Amino acid sequence: MKIRLGFIGMGRRGLRHLAMLSERADCAIVAIAEPLPAQNALAQKILAQKTHRPIFYDKNEQDYQRMIAQENLDAVLIYTPWKEHLAQSQFAMQHGVRVGVEVSGAQSLEECWQFVETYEQTQTPIMLLENCCYRRDVLAIAQMIKNGDFGELVYLKGGYQHDIRSVLFDEKLNFGAETQGESNWRTQEYLERNADIYPTHGLGPMAIFNDINAGNRITQVRSLATKSVGMKNFCQKNIAFKLGDIVLTQMQCERGEVMQLTHDTSLPRPFNLGLMVQGSKGIWQEYYRGDLSDGQIYLEKNDAAAPLEKRWQSPKKYLRKNDSSIWVKFRKKITKFGRYGIDYIMLNDFIERIQQGKEFRIDVYDLATWKAITPLSEQSIQANGKMIEMPDFTKGKYIDRKNKFKNYE
Amino acid sequence: MKIRLGFIGMGRRGLRHLAMLSERADCAIVAIAEPLPAQNALAQKILAQKTHRPIFYDKNEQDYQRMIAQENLDAVLIYTPWKEHLAQSQFAMQHGVRVGVEVSGAQSLEECWQFVETYEQTQTPIMLLENCCYRRDVLAIAQMIKNGDFGELVYLKGGYQHDIRSVLFDEKLNFGAETQGESNWRTQEYLERNADIYPTHGLGPMAIFNDINAGNRITQVRSLATKSVGMKNFCQKNIAFKLGDIVLTQMQCERGEVMQLTHDTSLPRPFNLGLMVQGSKGIWQEYYRGDLSDGQIYLEKNDAAAPLEKRWQSPKKYLRKNDSSIWVKFRKKITKFGRYGIDYIMLNDFIERIQQGKEFRIDVYDLATWKAITPLSEQSIQANGKMIEMPDFTKGKYIDRKNKFKNYE
Repeated sequence: MKIRLGFIGMGRRGLRHLAMLSERADCAIVAIAEPLPAQNALAQKILAQKTHRPIFYDKNEQDYQRMIAQENLDAVLIYTPWKEHLAQSQFAMQHGVRVGVEVSGAQSLEECWQFVETYEQTQTPIMLLENCCYRRDVLAIAQMIKNGDFGELVYLKGGYQHDIRSVLFDEKLNFGAETQGESNWRTQEYLERNADIYPTHGLGPMAIFNDINAGNRITQVRSLATKSVGMKNFCQKNIAFKLGDIVLTQMQCERGEVMQLTHDTSLPRPFNLGLMVQGSKGIWQEYYRGDLSDGQIYLEKNDAAAPLEKRWQSPKKYLRKNDSSIWVKFRKKITKFGRYGIDYIMLNDFIERIQQGKEFRIDVYDLATWKAITPLSEQSIQANGKMIEMPDFTKGKYIDRKNKFKNYE
Repeated sequence: MKIRLGFIGMGRRGLRHLAMLSERADCAIVAIAEPLPAQNALAQKILAQKTHRPIFYDKNEQDYQRMIAQENLDAVLIYTPWKEHLAQSQFAMQHGVRVGVEVSGAQSLEECWQFVETYEQTQTPIMLLENCCYRRDVLAIAQMIKNGDFGELVYLKGGYQHDIRSVLFDEKLNFGAETQGESNWRTQEYLERNADIYPTHGLGPMAIFNDINAGNRITQVRSLATKSVGMKNFCQKNIAFKLGDIVLTQMQCERGEVMQLTHDTSLPRPFNLGLMVQGSKGIWQEYYRGDLSDGQIYLEKNDAAAPLEKRWQSPKKYLRKNDSSIWVKFRKKITKFGRYGIDYIMLNDFIERIQQGKEFRIDVYDLATWKAITPLSEQSIQANGKMIEMPDFTKGKYIDRKNKFKNYE
């Protein structure tokens, strides 16, 4: 079944995914909605050697609506600034066009509910394009959890720990309406909000590990922020950015676990997600340095008798043993994409689930829950770290929902 | 100057320190207060080849008072169960005998104030025997912070991450009054309290790094606990231990930093303190596996241009360059003590500061602040993670106090 795809937004992420999907014989890139000519030129360059000849909807920022109304799409993929995600997703869902939407935090709790309500009214599926859920280590560790290797889970950590200041400012260290790329809009969030504004890269994997919305749920959330020094230092201007350099968010879960999320994007540091899983039988700590098996693992049954310096093991052999079928299948094919191989695997899943008529693995309830961390953390920080209730977007359905990443197939 | 020393408590810790101090020609072990004959026999065995011939005060648990009243001690060292620390310290201070007291959390906030008030009334110095403050990595990193290598500090982590269940239960998996050693009293804390009951190993180093009570102070504290599964699993009895397996405590500091402390002692894991220092110019993460230079460090000025897989460096060369004079001096001598070399260095400091007439590096205000984490975290957990004010035990003196671990001499 050939999937008719439309794209909204030809920024950095949109172009990357366009390139990947344009390689697939089972996808037709039929339309692209993007008002900036320079970005469309880049898209055309990517497609030059391919057979796809999309129509460009480039009149203005609302032209995606014409695309959705006219093109009889099977699905639309959204790569626009965060504030546009809801309206574009809603418009597509209301027109029966499935949605894959880039990750972000929600602008408000109401926004989360609107995603859910639109889905429930239209029954048009939407998937949050959280690529970190498709990481090799995440899928293998999820399987080990399923197999009981870590016992009963107790504590989990994850975060977005990535110094992205070089995309938040242009070469002249400016940001805002006059600049191009993410500095045009993303930096504004750092000015205006003290919250975990980008929760899903860290939370997605933890949610999978800990069966969130699949037997378990987040009941309460609280956050705390440090001072802000990294943004000022970087742009060499005395601007009062509201966002603390580090925002820590703790989530209490119904089964008694705590999950801790870190937002850490404006201090100098090497990238990693700092994923950690601790249970009654073992512990895994990721510290990615370029290889998805970087980190350390300790399983009581295997390692308890070793001397201290040998108790931690490399995760390598465990990942190999527990690799998901999807990584076994695609490992060679994705080598050329480097660290974006996870995007290829995620997009493959998006397409295949449509072809197979199956629900997306990351659906509207996950989307709403994960994105809700942003407004809830903001509310908590404003109230000096108060615990805030997390709504149950599934309205009780979380009890019987299945985890679609464990026993991945 | 020969220091006349008395000991209270000949358990595991007391015996270890007795052995170390009995080696010193500048110390006279003049008295030991311990009611258990078996423990005193072990002490005598340690001293058999030495010239020290202490008098044993072994009539009952109060016999330490007779020792302090009679022996004209320069200092007393206390290694008893946590609940006895205050009364014993007070008695010694009131008799003008300097105190070195083993670490623990406070039973209440009042206890912390009583330490402070007793000191202020008697002017008899007391030192908290927090050995982790004397770790090689801690002293070298403190110096690097002083030198500005990490820039302005923003976020710090530390904790007591040590599966100690094998000392919390005897060989038959029992605990309580009928058992010997720490299971006799320490396990009771796990039954009765949900708090960070042992905060100082993680907090001490962070406090040094972040100038707590030396220009900076902790203003607010909040905690959160996971469920408790590790204790039940270990002792194979369905006992309701109050203490969550993981207790997370976050401290806001006056300068805007956040410090996060983890108490993690009842799940299977290799020991480490999980120390982390993150500033505006770099980051250090310890993950001790038997060598105090285990971990990773990233300094923007040195490593920013490297590819991702080479950005993290081993801390080895940095520790060597910034080693404290005390480690340079004692490195060879302490090899025989293995991981307890830090205790030798700490005790050496205790003795030398007395000889030199200098204030202890970890004084009553640090003791009160660090131990206060236990009652404050308990209060916070009881109030669903509410922020609790940390008293300023120094009553404003923290502003001008100096950090005695940076520029160590």
